[in-house]
Amino acid sequence: MVIILLVTVNLLTLVGDIEQPIVGYGVARVVDSRHSDFKKGDLVWGRTIGWEEYSLITTPEYLFKINHTDDIPLSYYTGILGMPGMTAYFGFFDIGSPKEGDRVYVSSASGAIGLLVGQFAKLIGCYVVGSAGSKEKVVLLKTKFGFDDAFNYKEEHDLDAALKRYFPEGIDIYFENVGGKMLDAVLLNMRHHGRIALCGMISQYNLEQPESVHNLIAVLFKQIRMEGFAVAECYDQYSKFLDFVLPYIKEGKIVYVEDITEGLESGPAALIGLFSGRNVGKQVVKVAQE
Amino acid sequence: MVIILLVTVNLLTLVGDIEQPIVGYGVARVVDSRHSDFKKGDLVWGRTIGWEEYSLITTPEYLFKINHTDDIPLSYYTGILGMPGMTAYFGFFDIGSPKEGDRVYVSSASGAIGLLVGQFAKLIGCYVVGSAGSKEKVVLLKTKFGFDDAFNYKEEHDLDAALKRYFPEGIDIYFENVGGKMLDAVLLNMRHHGRIALCGMISQYNLEQPESVHNLIAVLFKQIRMEGFAVAECYDQYSKFLDFVLPYIKEGKIVYVEDITEGLESGPAALIGLFSGRNVGKQVVKVAQE
Repeated sequence: MVIILLVTVNLLTLVGDIEQPIVGYGVARVVDSRHSDFKKGDLVWGRTIGWEEYSLITTPEYLFKINHTDDIPLSYYTGILGMPGMTAYFGFFDIGSPKEGDRVYVSSASGAIGLLVGQFAKLIGCYVVGSAGSKEKVVLLKTKFGFDDAFNYKEEHDLDAALKRYFPEGIDIYFENVGGKMLDAVLLNMRHHGRIALCGMISQYNLEQPESVHNLIAVLFKQIRMEGFAVAECYDQYSKFLDFVLPYIKEGKIVYVEDITEGLESGPAALIGLFSGRNVGKQVVKVAQE
Repeated sequence: MVIILLVTVNLLTLVGDIEQPIVGYGVARVVDSRHSDFKKGDLVWGRTIGWEEYSLITTPEYLFKINHTDDIPLSYYTGILGMPGMTAYFGFFDIGSPKEGDRVYVSSASGAIGLLVGQFAKLIGCYVVGSAGSKEKVVLLKTKFGFDDAFNYKEEHDLDAALKRYFPEGIDIYFENVGGKMLDAVLLNMRHHGRIALCGMISQYNLEQPESVHNLIAVLFKQIRMEGFAVAECYDQYSKFLDFVLPYIKEGKIVYVEDITEGLESGPAALIGLFSGRNVGKQVVKVAQE
Protein backbone atom coordinates (compact mmCIF):
# COMPACT_ATOMS: atom_id res chain seq x y z
CA MET A 1 0.00 0.00 0.00
CA VAL A 2 1.41 3.38 -0.92
CA ILE A 3 0.18 6.88 -0.51
CA ILE A 4 0.43 8.89 -3.68
CA LEU A 5 2.27 12.18 -3.63
CA LEU A 6 2.46 12.90 -7.32
CA VAL A 7 1.13 11.29 -10.43
CA THR A 8 2.32 12.12 -13.87
CA VAL A 9 0.33 12.63 -16.98
CA ASN A 10 1.64 10.68 -19.89
CA LEU A 11 0.11 8.68 -22.64
CA LEU A 12 1.41 5.31 -23.56
CA THR A 13 1.15 3.88 -20.08
CA LEU A 14 -2.26 5.19 -19.15
CA VAL A 15 -4.64 2.35 -18.58
CA GLY A 16 -8.16 3.09 -17.57
CA ASP A 17 -11.08 0.75 -17.09
CA ILE A 18 -14.40 2.40 -16.42
CA GLU A 19 -14.88 2.79 -12.64
CA GLN A 20 -11.20 1.99 -12.02
CA PRO A 21 -8.59 4.67 -11.32
CA ILE A 22 -6.33 5.59 -14.21
CA VAL A 23 -2.89 4.08 -13.75
CA GLY A 24 0.31 5.87 -14.64
CA TYR A 25 3.70 6.83 -13.29
CA GLY A 26 3.95 8.41 -9.87
CA VAL A 27 5.98 9.13 -6.77
CA ALA A 28 4.66 7.75 -3.51
CA ARG A 29 5.46 6.95 0.11
CA VAL A 30 4.94 3.42 1.35
CA VAL A 31 2.46 3.25 4.25
CA ASP A 32 2.50 -0.51 4.52
CA SER A 33 4.37 -3.31 2.78
CA ARG A 34 4.49 -7.07 2.66
CA HIS A 35 7.45 -7.03 0.27
CA SER A 36 10.95 -7.34 1.71
CA ASP A 37 12.42 -4.72 -0.67
CA PHE A 38 10.08 -1.97 0.53
CA LYS A 39 9.33 -0.87 4.04
CA LYS A 40 7.00 1.66 5.62
CA GLY A 41 8.25 5.18 4.99
CA ASP A 42 10.18 4.40 1.79
CA LEU A 43 9.79 6.81 -1.09
CA VAL A 44 9.25 5.08 -4.42
CA TRP A 45 8.58 5.94 -8.04
CA GLY A 46 7.26 3.71 -10.75
CA ARG A 47 4.41 2.81 -12.97
CA THR A 48 1.12 1.18 -12.07
CA ILE A 49 0.55 3.86 -9.45
CA GLY A 50 -3.08 4.92 -9.61
CA TRP A 51 -4.61 8.38 -9.80
CA GLU A 52 -5.83 8.08 -6.23
CA GLU A 53 -4.78 8.99 -2.69
CA TYR A 54 -3.93 5.47 -1.60
CA SER A 55 -2.88 2.72 -3.96
CA LEU A 56 -2.49 -1.02 -3.59
CA ILE A 57 0.45 -2.10 -5.73
CA THR A 58 0.83 -5.73 -6.64
CA THR A 59 3.56 -5.30 -9.27
CA PRO A 60 6.62 -4.20 -7.29
CA GLU A 61 8.91 -5.03 -10.21
CA TYR A 62 7.94 -1.66 -11.65
CA LEU A 63 8.75 0.29 -8.46
CA PHE A 64 12.10 1.95 -7.75
CA LYS A 65 13.22 3.15 -4.34
CA ILE A 66 14.16 6.82 -4.18
CA ASN A 67 17.36 7.62 -2.31
CA HIS A 68 16.20 11.16 -1.83
CA THR A 69 18.59 13.98 -1.30
CA ASP A 70 17.34 17.42 -0.38
CA ASP A 71 18.69 19.20 -3.42
CA ILE A 72 16.59 17.20 -5.88
CA PRO A 73 12.82 17.83 -5.91
CA LEU A 74 10.80 14.65 -5.43
CA SER A 75 8.78 15.50 -8.51
CA TYR A 76 11.89 14.97 -10.66
CA TYR A 77 11.27 11.25 -10.23
CA THR A 78 8.16 11.61 -12.35
CA GLY A 79 10.26 13.18 -15.08
CA ILE A 80 13.94 13.72 -15.60
CA LEU A 81 14.89 11.02 -13.08
CA GLY A 82 12.07 8.68 -14.05
CA MET A 83 10.39 7.36 -17.14
CA PRO A 84 10.69 10.46 -19.37
CA GLY A 85 14.37 10.88 -18.53
CA MET A 86 15.10 7.25 -19.30
CA THR A 87 13.08 7.41 -22.51
CA ALA A 88 15.06 10.42 -23.67
CA TYR A 89 18.37 8.88 -22.65
CA PHE A 90 18.02 5.32 -23.95
CA GLY A 91 15.91 6.29 -26.96
CA PHE A 92 18.42 8.88 -28.06
CA PHE A 93 21.64 7.08 -27.27
CA ASP A 94 20.70 3.45 -27.94
CA ILE A 95 18.53 3.91 -31.02
CA GLY A 96 19.86 7.23 -32.29
CA SER A 97 23.53 6.13 -32.02
CA PRO A 98 24.55 9.80 -32.01
CA LYS A 99 27.98 11.18 -32.62
CA GLU A 100 29.42 14.67 -32.47
CA GLY A 101 28.25 16.84 -35.33
CA ASP A 102 25.12 14.82 -36.08
CA ARG A 103 22.08 16.83 -37.12
CA VAL A 104 19.24 16.02 -34.75
CA TYR A 105 15.58 16.88 -35.10
CA VAL A 106 13.19 16.59 -32.15
CA SER A 107 9.45 16.93 -32.60
CA SER A 108 7.27 17.76 -29.62
CA ALA A 109 10.48 19.32 -28.35
CA SER A 110 8.99 21.28 -25.46
CA GLY A 111 7.52 18.17 -23.85
CA ALA A 112 9.22 16.40 -20.97
CA ILE A 113 11.09 13.96 -23.20
CA GLY A 114 11.85 16.29 -26.11
CA LEU A 115 13.45 18.91 -23.86
CA LEU A 116 15.83 16.32 -22.51
CA VAL A 117 16.68 14.77 -25.87
CA GLY A 118 17.65 18.19 -27.20
CA GLN A 119 19.87 18.87 -24.22
CA PHE A 120 21.49 15.42 -24.28
CA ALA A 121 22.23 15.98 -27.97
CA LYS A 122 23.82 19.36 -27.28
CA LEU A 123 25.96 17.85 -24.50
CA ILE A 124 27.70 15.61 -27.04
CA GLY A 125 28.08 18.28 -29.72
CA CYS A 126 25.15 17.69 -32.06
CA TYR A 127 23.27 20.35 -34.01
CA VAL A 128 19.71 20.29 -32.67
CA VAL A 129 16.47 21.74 -33.96
CA GLY A 130 13.14 21.26 -32.24
CA SER A 131 9.56 21.91 -33.20
CA ALA A 132 6.71 22.85 -30.92
CA GLY A 133 3.21 24.25 -31.20
CA SER A 134 3.44 27.88 -30.07
CA LYS A 135 5.61 30.95 -30.43
CA GLU A 136 6.31 30.94 -26.68
CA LYS A 137 7.56 27.37 -26.74
CA VAL A 138 9.81 28.11 -29.69
CA VAL A 139 11.37 31.02 -27.82
CA LEU A 140 11.90 28.84 -24.75
CA LEU A 141 13.59 26.11 -26.80
CA LYS A 142 16.08 28.60 -28.23
CA THR A 143 16.73 30.70 -25.14
CA LYS A 144 16.24 28.48 -22.12
CA PHE A 145 16.93 24.96 -23.39
CA GLY A 146 19.86 25.58 -25.72
CA PHE A 147 18.41 24.26 -28.99
CA ASP A 148 20.32 25.62 -31.99
CA ASP A 149 17.02 26.49 -33.60
CA ALA A 150 13.32 25.83 -33.29
CA PHE A 151 10.10 26.39 -35.20
CA ASN A 152 6.35 26.41 -34.66
CA TYR A 153 4.97 23.56 -36.74
CA LYS A 154 1.48 25.09 -36.64
CA GLU A 155 2.74 28.05 -38.66
CA GLU A 156 4.27 25.86 -41.38
CA HIS A 157 1.86 24.84 -44.10
CA ASP A 158 4.68 22.89 -45.78
CA LEU A 159 6.60 20.83 -43.22
CA ASP A 160 8.97 19.52 -45.88
CA ALA A 161 10.00 23.07 -46.79
CA ALA A 162 10.40 23.95 -43.11
CA LEU A 163 12.72 21.00 -42.50
CA LYS A 164 14.76 21.87 -45.59
CA ARG A 165 15.22 25.37 -44.15
CA TYR A 166 16.61 24.08 -40.85
CA PHE A 167 18.40 21.04 -42.26
CA PRO A 168 19.69 21.99 -45.72
CA GLU A 169 22.03 18.98 -45.55
CA GLY A 170 19.42 16.65 -44.07
CA ILE A 171 18.75 14.98 -40.72
CA ASP A 172 20.92 12.28 -39.16
CA ILE A 173 18.70 11.50 -36.18
CA TYR A 174 14.98 12.06 -35.78
CA PHE A 175 13.54 11.60 -32.32
CA GLU A 176 9.90 10.88 -33.13
CA ASN A 177 7.17 11.86 -30.69
CA VAL A 178 4.48 12.81 -33.15
CA GLY A 179 3.88 10.53 -36.15
CA GLY A 180 1.63 11.20 -39.13
CA LYS A 181 2.39 14.11 -41.45
CA MET A 182 5.50 15.08 -39.52
CA LEU A 183 7.06 11.66 -40.04
CA ASP A 184 6.24 11.83 -43.74
CA ALA A 185 8.03 15.16 -44.09
CA VAL A 186 10.99 13.94 -42.06
CA LEU A 187 11.42 10.87 -44.28
CA LEU A 188 11.99 13.20 -47.23
CA ASN A 189 14.75 14.96 -45.32
CA MET A 190 16.64 12.12 -43.68
CA ARG A 191 20.26 11.62 -44.58
CA HIS A 192 21.80 8.40 -45.78
CA HIS A 193 22.05 5.96 -42.85
CA GLY A 194 19.86 8.19 -40.72
CA ARG A 195 18.22 6.85 -37.57
CA ILE A 196 14.63 7.35 -36.48
CA ALA A 197 13.86 6.59 -32.83
CA LEU A 198 10.13 6.04 -32.50
CA CYS A 199 9.30 6.94 -28.92
CA GLY A 200 5.79 8.29 -29.35
CA MET A 201 3.17 9.19 -31.94
CA ILE A 202 0.89 11.54 -30.06
CA SER A 203 -0.86 12.74 -33.22
CA GLN A 204 -2.12 9.20 -33.80
CA TYR A 205 -3.41 8.00 -30.44
CA ASN A 206 -6.89 9.46 -30.65
CA LEU A 207 -7.59 8.72 -34.31
CA GLU A 208 -10.01 5.96 -35.25
CA GLN A 209 -7.97 5.38 -38.40
CA PRO A 210 -4.26 6.14 -38.19
CA GLU A 211 -2.95 8.65 -40.71
CA SER A 212 -1.08 7.07 -43.55
CA VAL A 213 2.62 7.50 -44.30
CA HIS A 214 3.55 7.91 -47.96
CA ASN A 215 7.32 8.23 -48.04
CA LEU A 216 8.44 5.00 -46.42
CA ILE A 217 10.41 4.07 -49.53
CA ALA A 218 13.00 6.55 -48.26
CA VAL A 219 13.88 3.95 -45.58
CA LEU A 220 14.95 1.65 -48.41
CA PHE A 221 16.68 4.17 -50.63
CA LYS A 222 18.56 5.94 -47.84
CA GLN A 223 19.23 2.85 -45.71
CA ILE A 224 17.50 4.39 -42.76
CA ARG A 225 17.10 2.50 -39.50
CA MET A 226 13.75 3.07 -37.80
CA GLU A 227 13.11 1.47 -34.45
CA GLY A 228 10.39 1.52 -31.87
CA PHE A 229 11.41 1.96 -28.28
CA ALA A 230 9.84 1.01 -24.94
CA VAL A 231 11.50 2.40 -21.86
CA ALA A 232 10.26 -0.46 -19.68
CA GLU A 233 12.86 -2.68 -21.31
CA CYS A 234 15.65 -0.46 -19.99
CA TYR A 235 14.65 -0.33 -16.34
CA ASP A 236 17.40 -2.77 -15.40
CA GLN A 237 19.83 -0.03 -16.45
CA TYR A 238 18.38 2.63 -14.16
CA SER A 239 21.57 3.09 -12.15
CA LYS A 240 23.61 3.61 -15.34
CA PHE A 241 21.18 6.34 -16.30
CA LEU A 242 21.39 8.02 -12.87
CA ASP A 243 25.19 8.00 -13.06
CA PHE A 244 24.94 9.90 -16.34
CA VAL A 245 22.24 12.40 -15.52
CA LEU A 246 22.63 13.30 -11.81
CA PRO A 247 25.97 15.10 -12.18
CA TYR A 248 24.55 17.24 -15.00
CA ILE A 249 21.55 18.17 -12.87
CA LYS A 250 23.70 19.04 -9.85
CA GLU A 251 26.06 21.12 -12.00
CA GLY A 252 23.12 22.94 -13.54
CA LYS A 253 24.03 21.78 -17.03
CA ILE A 254 20.56 20.45 -17.76
CA VAL A 255 17.55 22.70 -17.54
CA TYR A 256 14.37 20.95 -16.48
CA VAL A 257 10.88 22.36 -16.12
CA GLU A 258 7.63 21.00 -14.79
CA ASP A 259 4.02 22.00 -15.04
CA ILE A 260 2.58 20.98 -11.66
CA THR A 261 -1.13 21.26 -11.00
CA GLU A 262 -2.58 20.78 -7.51
CA GLY A 263 -5.19 18.24 -6.56
CA LEU A 264 -6.49 15.06 -8.08
CA GLU A 265 -9.46 16.97 -9.49
CA SER A 266 -7.11 18.86 -11.83
CA GLY A 267 -5.98 15.58 -13.44
CA PRO A 268 -8.51 15.28 -16.26
CA ALA A 269 -7.84 18.79 -17.56
CA ALA A 270 -4.09 18.19 -17.36
CA LEU A 271 -4.46 15.01 -19.39
CA ILE A 272 -6.62 16.60 -22.06
CA GLY A 273 -4.23 19.54 -22.18
CA LEU A 274 -1.47 17.29 -23.48
CA PHE A 275 -3.36 16.75 -26.72
CA SER A 276 -3.83 20.46 -27.31
CA GLY A 277 -0.20 21.17 -26.39
CA ARG A 278 -0.96 23.27 -23.31
CA ASN A 279 2.00 22.19 -21.21
CA VAL A 280 5.69 23.00 -21.30
CA GLY A 281 7.83 20.30 -19.73
CA LYS A 282 6.54 17.47 -17.62
CA GLN A 283 2.88 17.65 -16.68
CA VAL A 284 2.50 16.55 -13.05
CA VAL A 285 -0.55 16.34 -10.79
CA LYS A 286 0.09 16.70 -7.07
CA VAL A 287 -2.32 14.54 -5.13
CA ALA A 288 -1.06 14.76 -1.53
CA GLN A 289 1.44 16.85 0.42
CA GLU A 290 4.67 15.20 1.50
CA MET B 1 36.83 -2.28 -72.24
CA VAL B 2 34.86 -5.47 -71.60
CA ILE B 3 32.75 -7.67 -73.77
CA ILE B 4 29.44 -8.53 -72.19
CA LEU B 5 28.46 -12.15 -71.82
CA LEU B 6 25.43 -11.80 -69.60
CA VAL B 7 23.48 -8.92 -68.19
CA THR B 8 20.98 -9.26 -65.43
CA VAL B 9 17.61 -7.73 -65.16
CA ASN B 10 17.06 -6.07 -61.85
CA LEU B 11 15.50 -2.90 -60.70
CA LEU B 12 17.17 -0.68 -58.20
CA THR B 13 20.37 -0.36 -60.14
CA LEU B 14 18.93 0.20 -63.58
CA VAL B 15 19.91 3.58 -64.86
CA GLY B 16 18.83 4.63 -68.27
CA ASP B 17 19.24 7.92 -70.02
CA ILE B 18 17.48 8.20 -73.34
CA GLU B 19 19.88 7.11 -76.12
CA GLN B 20 22.27 5.57 -73.58
CA PRO B 21 22.42 1.86 -72.85
CA ILE B 22 20.73 0.71 -69.68
CA VAL B 23 23.27 -0.09 -67.01
CA GLY B 24 22.97 -3.02 -64.62
CA TYR B 25 24.85 -5.99 -63.26
CA GLY B 26 26.61 -8.33 -65.64
CA VAL B 27 29.33 -10.87 -66.29
CA ALA B 28 31.93 -9.94 -68.88
CA ARG B 29 35.34 -10.76 -70.30
CA VAL B 30 37.95 -8.04 -70.44
CA VAL B 31 39.14 -7.36 -73.99
CA ASP B 32 41.40 -4.48 -73.06
CA SER B 33 42.41 -2.80 -69.82
CA ARG B 34 44.41 0.13 -68.57
CA HIS B 35 43.82 -0.85 -64.94
CA SER B 36 46.49 -2.88 -63.18
CA ASP B 37 43.94 -5.12 -61.38
CA PHE B 38 42.37 -6.34 -64.62
CA LYS B 39 44.05 -7.79 -67.66
CA LYS B 40 42.89 -8.97 -71.06
CA GLY B 41 41.04 -12.26 -70.78
CA ASP B 42 39.89 -11.80 -67.16
CA LEU B 43 36.32 -12.68 -66.35
CA VAL B 44 34.57 -10.10 -64.20
CA TRP B 45 31.18 -9.42 -62.69
CA GLY B 46 29.85 -6.17 -61.34
CA ARG B 47 27.53 -3.30 -61.79
CA THR B 48 27.72 -0.44 -64.29
CA ILE B 49 27.97 -2.98 -67.08
CA GLY B 50 25.78 -1.80 -69.94
CA TRP B 51 23.16 -3.66 -71.94
CA GLU B 52 25.45 -3.75 -74.97
CA GLU B 53 28.00 -6.01 -76.63
CA TYR B 54 31.04 -4.00 -75.65
CA SER B 55 31.22 -1.73 -72.65
CA LEU B 56 33.69 0.91 -71.54
CA ILE B 57 33.90 0.75 -67.76
CA THR B 58 35.35 3.68 -65.88
CA THR B 59 34.30 2.57 -62.39
CA PRO B 60 36.42 -0.51 -61.70
CA GLU B 61 35.64 -0.29 -57.97
CA TYR B 62 32.38 -2.04 -58.77
CA LEU B 63 33.99 -4.92 -60.69
CA PHE B 64 35.01 -8.25 -59.15
CA LYS B 65 37.32 -10.74 -60.79
CA ILE B 66 35.83 -14.21 -61.23
CA ASN B 67 38.10 -17.10 -60.27
CA HIS B 68 36.07 -19.40 -62.41
CA THR B 69 35.90 -23.09 -61.76
CA ASP B 70 34.24 -25.40 -64.25
CA ASP B 71 31.59 -26.71 -61.90
CA ILE B 72 29.99 -23.29 -61.37
CA PRO B 73 28.09 -21.72 -64.29
CA LEU B 74 29.33 -18.25 -65.16
CA SER B 75 25.78 -16.96 -64.99
CA TYR B 76 25.76 -17.64 -61.23
CA TYR B 77 27.82 -14.47 -60.87
CA THR B 78 24.79 -12.48 -61.96
CA GLY B 79 22.80 -14.12 -59.18
CA ILE B 80 23.62 -16.40 -56.30
CA LEU B 81 27.32 -15.48 -56.41
CA GLY B 82 26.73 -11.83 -57.21
CA MET B 83 24.47 -9.00 -56.15
CA PRO B 84 21.28 -11.00 -55.45
CA GLY B 85 23.17 -13.57 -53.39
CA MET B 86 24.88 -10.88 -51.34
CA THR B 87 21.60 -9.01 -50.89
CA ALA B 88 19.94 -12.15 -49.57
CA TYR B 89 22.88 -13.00 -47.33
CA PHE B 90 23.70 -9.64 -45.78
CA GLY B 91 20.10 -8.40 -45.75
CA PHE B 92 18.90 -11.51 -43.97
CA PHE B 93 21.79 -12.05 -41.58
CA ASP B 94 22.88 -8.48 -40.83
CA ILE B 95 19.46 -6.81 -40.65
CA GLY B 96 17.29 -9.80 -39.81
CA SER B 97 19.57 -10.99 -36.98
CA PRO B 98 18.02 -14.47 -37.29
CA LYS B 99 18.24 -17.25 -34.78
CA GLU B 100 17.07 -20.84 -34.80
CA GLY B 101 13.31 -21.12 -34.53
CA ASP B 102 12.56 -17.61 -35.77
CA ARG B 103 9.46 -17.27 -37.94
CA VAL B 104 10.48 -15.76 -41.25
CA TYR B 105 8.26 -14.36 -43.97
CA VAL B 106 9.61 -13.65 -47.46
CA SER B 107 7.55 -11.77 -50.02
CA SER B 108 8.39 -12.09 -53.71
CA ALA B 109 9.81 -15.41 -52.56
CA SER B 110 10.26 -16.96 -55.98
CA GLY B 111 12.53 -14.16 -57.18
CA ALA B 112 16.30 -14.48 -57.21
CA ILE B 113 16.74 -12.93 -53.78
CA GLY B 114 13.67 -14.38 -52.08
CA LEU B 115 14.55 -17.94 -53.04
CA LEU B 116 17.93 -17.57 -51.39
CA VAL B 117 16.63 -15.85 -48.26
CA GLY B 118 14.21 -18.71 -47.69
CA GLN B 119 16.95 -21.30 -48.10
CA PHE B 120 19.42 -19.43 -45.88
CA ALA B 121 16.70 -19.23 -43.23
CA LYS B 122 16.04 -22.98 -43.44
CA LEU B 123 19.78 -23.72 -43.16
CA ILE B 124 19.83 -22.17 -39.68
CA GLY B 125 16.58 -23.74 -38.50
CA CYS B 126 13.98 -21.02 -39.04
CA TYR B 127 10.33 -21.59 -39.98
CA VAL B 128 9.90 -19.98 -43.41
CA VAL B 129 6.83 -19.02 -45.39
CA GLY B 130 7.00 -17.31 -48.78
CA SER B 131 4.47 -15.62 -50.98
CA ALA B 132 4.47 -15.45 -54.75
CA GLY B 133 2.08 -14.59 -57.55
CA SER B 134 1.05 -17.90 -59.10
CA LYS B 135 0.03 -21.43 -58.16
CA GLU B 136 3.07 -22.84 -59.96
CA LYS B 137 5.47 -20.67 -57.99
CA VAL B 138 3.82 -21.65 -54.71
CA VAL B 139 4.27 -25.34 -55.56
CA LEU B 140 7.92 -24.73 -56.44
CA LEU B 141 8.57 -22.92 -53.16
CA LYS B 142 7.21 -25.85 -51.16
CA THR B 143 8.61 -28.72 -53.19
CA LYS B 144 11.83 -27.54 -54.78
CA PHE B 145 13.07 -24.77 -52.49
CA GLY B 146 12.23 -26.18 -49.08
CA PHE B 147 9.94 -23.45 -47.75
CA ASP B 148 7.78 -24.73 -44.88
CA ASP B 149 4.77 -23.18 -46.55
CA ALA B 150 3.84 -20.72 -49.28
CA PHE B 151 0.81 -18.91 -50.64
CA ASN B 152 -0.35 -17.04 -53.72
CA TYR B 153 -0.91 -13.44 -52.64
CA LYS B 154 -3.09 -12.81 -55.70
CA GLU B 155 -5.66 -15.27 -54.36
CA GLU B 156 -5.85 -13.60 -50.95
CA HIS B 157 -8.30 -10.73 -50.74
CA ASP B 158 -7.31 -10.23 -47.08
CA LEU B 159 -3.53 -10.35 -46.67
CA ASP B 160 -3.81 -9.85 -42.90
CA ALA B 161 -5.96 -12.97 -42.59
CA ALA B 162 -3.57 -14.91 -44.83
CA LEU B 163 -0.59 -14.01 -42.68
CA LYS B 164 -2.49 -14.93 -39.50
CA ARG B 165 -3.13 -18.35 -41.04
CA TYR B 166 0.56 -19.01 -41.70
CA PHE B 167 1.89 -17.17 -38.65
CA PRO B 168 -0.61 -17.65 -35.84
CA GLU B 169 2.10 -16.58 -33.39
CA GLY B 170 3.38 -13.73 -35.55
CA ILE B 171 6.45 -12.99 -37.64
CA ASP B 172 9.95 -12.46 -36.25
CA ILE B 173 11.64 -11.47 -39.49
CA TYR B 174 10.10 -10.01 -42.63
CA PHE B 175 12.30 -9.83 -45.69
CA GLU B 176 10.61 -7.08 -47.67
CA ASN B 177 10.75 -7.06 -51.45
CA VAL B 178 7.33 -5.67 -52.18
CA GLY B 179 6.11 -2.68 -50.13
CA GLY B 180 2.62 -1.17 -50.14
CA LYS B 181 -0.34 -3.24 -48.97
CA MET B 182 1.84 -6.24 -48.14
CA LEU B 183 3.94 -4.22 -45.71
CA ASP B 184 0.80 -2.88 -44.07
CA ALA B 185 -0.52 -6.38 -43.48
CA VAL B 186 2.85 -7.59 -42.22
CA LEU B 187 3.05 -4.76 -39.66
CA LEU B 188 -0.16 -6.08 -38.08
CA ASN B 189 1.43 -9.50 -37.73
CA MET B 190 4.94 -8.74 -36.55
CA ARG B 191 6.04 -10.04 -33.19
CA HIS B 192 7.52 -7.97 -30.40
CA HIS B 193 11.09 -6.98 -31.35
CA GLY B 194 10.55 -8.19 -34.91
CA ARG B 195 12.93 -7.14 -37.67
CA ILE B 196 11.99 -5.90 -41.13
CA ALA B 197 14.76 -5.90 -43.73
CA LEU B 198 13.77 -3.55 -46.53
CA CYS B 199 15.57 -4.80 -49.60
CA GLY B 200 13.09 -3.85 -52.29
CA MET B 201 9.63 -2.42 -52.86
CA ILE B 202 8.80 -3.58 -56.37
CA SER B 203 5.11 -2.71 -56.04
CA GLN B 204 6.06 0.94 -55.62
CA TYR B 205 8.65 1.66 -58.31
CA ASN B 206 6.28 2.45 -61.15
CA LEU B 207 3.70 4.42 -59.19
CA GLU B 208 3.51 8.17 -59.62
CA GLN B 209 2.32 8.42 -56.01
CA PRO B 210 3.60 5.75 -53.63
CA GLU B 211 0.95 3.75 -51.80
CA SER B 212 0.49 4.79 -48.23
CA VAL B 213 1.22 2.67 -45.17
CA HIS B 214 -1.28 2.87 -42.33
CA ASN B 215 0.03 0.60 -39.61
CA LEU B 216 3.41 2.11 -38.87
CA ILE B 217 2.44 2.67 -35.25
CA ALA B 218 3.10 -1.06 -34.83
CA VAL B 219 6.82 -0.23 -35.09
CA LEU B 220 6.42 1.82 -31.93
CA PHE B 221 4.14 -0.48 -29.99
CA LYS B 222 6.00 -3.69 -30.82
CA GLN B 223 9.52 -2.20 -30.77
CA ILE B 224 10.15 -3.33 -34.30
CA ARG B 225 13.39 -2.54 -36.08
CA MET B 226 12.96 -1.65 -39.75
CA GLU B 227 16.01 -0.99 -41.84
CA GLY B 228 16.78 -0.27 -45.45
CA PHE B 229 19.60 -2.19 -47.03
CA ALA B 230 21.93 -1.51 -49.96
CA VAL B 231 24.15 -4.37 -51.03
CA ALA B 232 26.79 -2.04 -52.47
CA GLU B 233 27.85 -1.23 -48.92
CA CYS B 234 28.76 -4.88 -48.30
CA TYR B 235 30.98 -5.45 -51.32
CA ASP B 236 34.10 -5.27 -49.19
CA GLN B 237 32.85 -8.48 -47.54
CA TYR B 238 32.50 -10.42 -50.78
CA SER B 239 35.04 -13.08 -49.81
CA LYS B 240 33.23 -13.71 -46.50
CA PHE B 241 30.07 -14.28 -48.48
CA LEU B 242 31.77 -16.69 -50.91
CA ASP B 243 33.19 -18.69 -48.00
CA PHE B 244 29.64 -19.14 -46.71
CA VAL B 245 27.80 -19.89 -49.92
CA LEU B 246 30.22 -21.83 -52.17
CA PRO B 247 30.33 -24.98 -49.98
CA TYR B 248 26.53 -25.13 -49.90
CA ILE B 249 26.36 -24.82 -53.69
CA LYS B 250 29.00 -27.51 -54.22
CA GLU B 251 27.27 -29.85 -51.76
CA GLY B 252 23.95 -29.26 -53.49
CA LYS B 253 22.39 -27.85 -50.33
CA ILE B 254 21.14 -24.74 -52.04
CA VAL B 255 18.85 -24.94 -55.03
CA TYR B 256 19.27 -22.12 -57.52
CA VAL B 257 17.35 -21.43 -60.71
CA GLU B 258 17.71 -18.94 -63.50
CA ASP B 259 15.51 -17.71 -66.29
CA ILE B 260 17.94 -17.05 -69.14
CA THR B 261 16.74 -15.41 -72.34
CA GLU B 262 18.96 -15.21 -75.41
CA GLY B 263 19.98 -12.04 -77.19
CA LEU B 264 20.03 -8.40 -76.26
CA GLU B 265 16.77 -7.91 -78.13
CA SER B 266 14.99 -10.03 -75.51
CA GLY B 267 16.04 -7.61 -72.75
CA PRO B 268 13.09 -5.22 -72.76
CA ALA B 269 10.51 -8.00 -72.51
CA ALA B 270 12.52 -9.63 -69.71
CA LEU B 271 12.60 -6.35 -67.81
CA ILE B 272 8.88 -5.68 -68.20
CA GLY B 273 8.19 -9.30 -67.22
CA LEU B 274 9.57 -8.64 -63.75
CA PHE B 275 6.70 -6.29 -62.98
CA SER B 276 4.07 -8.83 -64.02
CA GLY B 277 5.87 -11.61 -62.14
CA ARG B 278 6.70 -13.72 -65.20
CA ASN B 279 10.03 -15.06 -64.01
CA VAL B 280 11.05 -17.68 -61.49
CA GLY B 281 14.54 -17.15 -60.13
CA LYS B 282 17.09 -14.78 -61.55
CA GLN B 283 16.19 -13.18 -64.87
CA VAL B 284 19.28 -13.11 -67.07
CA VAL B 285 19.79 -11.92 -70.62
CA LYS B 286 22.59 -13.58 -72.57
CA VAL B 287 24.19 -11.09 -74.92
CA ALA B 288 27.23 -12.95 -76.26
CA GLN B 289 28.57 -16.51 -76.22
CA GLU B 290 31.58 -17.26 -74.07
